[in-house]
Amino acid sequence: MEKLKALLRVEESLGKLPSVGKKSAERMAYALLDMDEEDLIEFSSALRDLKSSISFCPKCGMISEDNECPICDDPDRDQTTLLVVAYPKDVISIDKSEGYKGLYHVLNGEISIGKGKTVEELNIPNLLNRIEEGKIKEVIIATNPTIDGETTSLYIARLLSKYPIEVTRLAYGLQMGGNIDYTDQLTLLKALEGRRKI
Amino acid sequence: MEKLKALLRVEESLGKLPSVGKKSAERMAYALLDMDEEDLIEFSSALRDLKSSISFCPKCGMISEDNECPICDDPDRDQTTLLVVAYPKDVISIDKSEGYKGLYHVLNGEISIGKGKTVEELNIPNLLNRIEEGKIKEVIIATNPTIDGETTSLYIARLLSKYPIEVTRLAYGLQMGGNIDYTDQLTLLKALEGRRKI
Repeated sequence: MEKLKALLRVEESLGKLPSVGKKSAERMAYALLDMDEEDLIEFSSALRDLKSSISFCPKCGMISEDNECPICDDPDRDQTTLLVVAYPKDVISIDKSEGYKGLYHVLNGEISIGKGKTVEELNIPNLLNRIEEGKIKEVIIATNPTIDGETTSLYIARLLSKYPIEVTRLAYGLQMGGNIDYTDQLTLLKALEGRRKI
Repeated sequence: MEKLKALLRVEESLGKLPSVGKKSAERMAYALLDMDEEDLIEFSSALRDLKSSISFCPKCGMISEDNECPICDDPDRDQTTLLVVAYPKDVISIDKSEGYKGLYHVLNGEISIGKGKTVEELNIPNLLNRIEEGKIKEVIIATNPTIDGETTSLYIARLLSKYPIEVTRLAYGLQMGGNIDYTDQLTLLKALEGRRKI
């Protein structure tokens, strides 16, 4: 008894999602088969509409709907600070913390040997354009604290070194609400290095 | 900065899949946004076509394409044994083991208080019809070794007790390739109870 083609098709698509293996994809496909027709149609059309209803801001690279960028279009934001992130979701996370009121720049990726992502694919030319306009005084690099994120951070820091601006990096350290004995050695080291007077 | 509606829509649909929490749904939605347009359209249409291209065999309840049931239509199968499972995927698993060459009956669910699934929703009337035809000599119950599966198994065994047929249940015991010291107590107890001469 062969597996049905219609199920295999769905499993194959599901298998392309992050951390969905063969077995999970199979379980999900059967769950979808069990769903109400209505839910399935909604899922299908949500996927179909996803790309077409979302556009990238030509200035900062952030995703937006209605072709307006709520960040670049906001005159109340500090126009002299630029926070550089790898992904749109990082903007949402950082903005939620309410500790930052400047502008953002989304690279839409990180330099990655593993994923075969090169510098050319990142939204870097636009970043340089923005800096050359002369208004920006500080660039805060907030790529992920991973190998890919660090590589990207160093690359950008070096690129920006020729401009008369301050280039900073988010601090490393203990996670709030975490335990010291659960914190990895590297983070502890970074937390010590970055210690501050209280 | 609010999350985009198009992303939220996809996240909501993803969140209905088994073991996909809020955070996973978010990660998956962003991954989908990063996918090629082509892959996304394929995923969307695979979902749209899923239900319409799959039908349930009116006899055994198994899913099939082209309105033919490869199992019920196979004259080489033993027509006197019926193996009862909860889900279509169980038929595929058991058939892959090549240890069984009889017919199947798919309940399409298990009695479940947790999931609010009642006896009336299961493919039981058809099961009784098939047994009343008089050809079946043995019914092997192969529902899951879980509370819901056991409840369903007991319920069916009781229903079938008035027919002059043998009703059996799959054996419980050690998993092949597993370790005794990793086997839970209940399984060990069942393995002891079901011990056989070698």
